[in-house]
Amino acid sequence: MSYEGDLITRRVIIATGQVDLTALFDWSYGLYIVSSHDGERLNGQIANACMQVTAEPPRVAVAISKNNLTHEYIVKSGQFGVSVLDESTPMKLIGLFGFKSGRDVDKLAMCKYKKGITGCPLVTDSVISVFEAKVIDQCDAGTHTIFVGQVVRAERLRKGKPLTYAHYHEVKKGKASKNAPTYRGHIEKKELKPEKRREGMQKYICEVCGYVYDPAQGDPDGDIAPGTEFDALPDEWVCPVCGAGKDQFSPES
Amino acid sequence: MSYEGDLITRRVIIATGQVDLTALFDWSYGLYIVSSHDGERLNGQIANACMQVTAEPPRVAVAISKNNLTHEYIVKSGQFGVSVLDESTPMKLIGLFGFKSGRDVDKLAMCKYKKGITGCPLVTDSVISVFEAKVIDQCDAGTHTIFVGQVVRAERLRKGKPLTYAHYHEVKKGKASKNAPTYRGHIEKKELKPEKRREGMQKYICEVCGYVYDPAQGDPDGDIAPGTEFDALPDEWVCPVCGAGKDQFSPES
Repeated sequence: MSYEGDLITRRVIIATGQVDLTALFDWSYGLYIVSSHDGERLNGQIANACMQVTAEPPRVAVAISKNNLTHEYIVKSGQFGVSVLDESTPMKLIGLFGFKSGRDVDKLAMCKYKKGITGCPLVTDSVISVFEAKVIDQCDAGTHTIFVGQVVRAERLRKGKPLTYAHYHEVKKGKASKNAPTYRGHIEKKELKPEKRREGMQKYICEVCGYVYDPAQGDPDGDIAPGTEFDALPDEWVCPVCGAGKDQFSPES
Repeated sequence: MSYEGDLITRRVIIATGQVDLTALFDWSYGLYIVSSHDGERLNGQIANACMQVTAEPPRVAVAISKNNLTHEYIVKSGQFGVSVLDESTPMKLIGLFGFKSGRDVDKLAMCKYKKGITGCPLVTDSVISVFEAKVIDQCDAGTHTIFVGQVVRAERLRKGKPLTYAHYHEVKKGKASKNAPTYRGHIEKKELKPEKRREGMQKYICEVCGYVYDPAQGDPDGDIAPGTEFDALPDEWVCPVCGAGKDQFSPES
C-alpha cells in the first residue's frame, strides 16, 4: 500500500457485467511492512499482497509496485524483510509506511526497528513477527513485481493478533493507496460513494490519520488560504498530518 | 491445501534459531477453491495462497502444488477459477476439496457449481464470490507454481463473511494438508504438541486431515453415538472430513 508519489489520477474502466471489481474485496489479507535496503539506505512500505508459497523450504511471495522505492531496493539488494503488524498498530505508523515515500522521508528514522542478518530493516513497533528473505525468483505482473523469497530468518517478537486488511478497512476505516494491488479508490468513487448534498462549506476527514480539512481554516502550512473549498484544493495537495492524497479524504458527516 | 494422495510422512529439518517456522502462522489468508479444467474434465482444490497483485488491470496470483491435479489442469488450460468461501462453509466441503484428490473422485459431481466463460468450474456452495482468470505468467517456487492470472470475470453471488485461514484453524479446528504452502504438520508434531497424559476415553487423530475423533462426542453425521470408543467404530466408518479409513487414524498424544 505504499504511496510513492504517483499523483496521476487514475482513469479506470470498470468492465460492466463480466468483471465486478467489488467482488475482489472478499479476498482476505494481513497487513505487513515489507522492507529492504540499498547499502546503508533503508526503506519499507505497507503491503498486503504477501503470502507463503511453499512450506519446504519456507518461501514467501510479495507483490510490490514498480513505482515504489522499496521495489528499487529489493531489486538492488535481492533481499527483503517482512514485519507482521499487530491489530493494535496505530494509524500513524500505517500512514508513515503506507502513505509517505521513502524518497521524501526517512521512515525508519521515525520508528523502532532493528537490522537483520540481510541488512534489511525490521520494524519492531507494533509488530508480532519479523522475516528476512533472499529473492530466488521474480515475476512481472504489470504495475507490480512479485518477488519470491526464501526465508532465511524468522522470529516471533511477541504474542499478538495479526492486523488483517478487513480490520484495517472496517474498524480502522483505512484505505489503500493508489499503488496498492487492492486499490479501491476508483471503485469506491464510482460505485460505493453516493453523491452528498453540500450545505455550507463541507469539511473533509482524512481516513488515514483523522485530520479534518476545514475550508474555513484552509491549510496554512500548505499555503491554502482560508475559504478554500476541498474540491478547489490542487490535486497534489496532501494531508498535512500523514501525507495521504486527496482521494483518502471523505466528507465529514 | 489440496491433498492429492501423498501419504509419505515428511521428514523436515526445522532450522533452529534463525528460522522460527511458527512465526509464519502470523500471516493472514482467506480460504478459496481454485479450479480449472482439461476440456470436459473438471477439478478444484482448497487454496489459501491467493492474492490480488495488481489493480489495473485486475490480476491475481495463486500458489498451487505441482503434485495437484488442479496444477496439471491450469498448465493445460491456461485458466483458473477462484471461489471465495464463506465462513459458514461446512468442513465436509473443505474436506472434499482440500483432502481428496481429483484423481480419485469427481469433486464437482459432489457439490453445486456452474461453468464459467473460461470453462472452469465455479463452486457456488457456501461461496460469496467467484472469479475467472487467464494465466499471463507463472513462477516456479519449488514445490509450488505461482500462476499469475488476469481476471476476466468476477461476480459476487451473495453477501457473506469470507472464511479466513485463522478462523478455519482456530474455530473450525482445521488443518493444512501435506501439499499446502502453509503445511504445519511437521512443525506441530515437533514443536507444538507436548506429550499429554491420557485420561478417560482415547481420542484418535486423522493423519490425513487432522480431524480428531472424540469418543465423548461420537460422530453425529455418521450416526455414531456419543460414548463410542474408537475401537468400537464399524470398520466401514470413515473420517467425516476427508473420508480416510480407520487405519489412517492414530491415538492422539
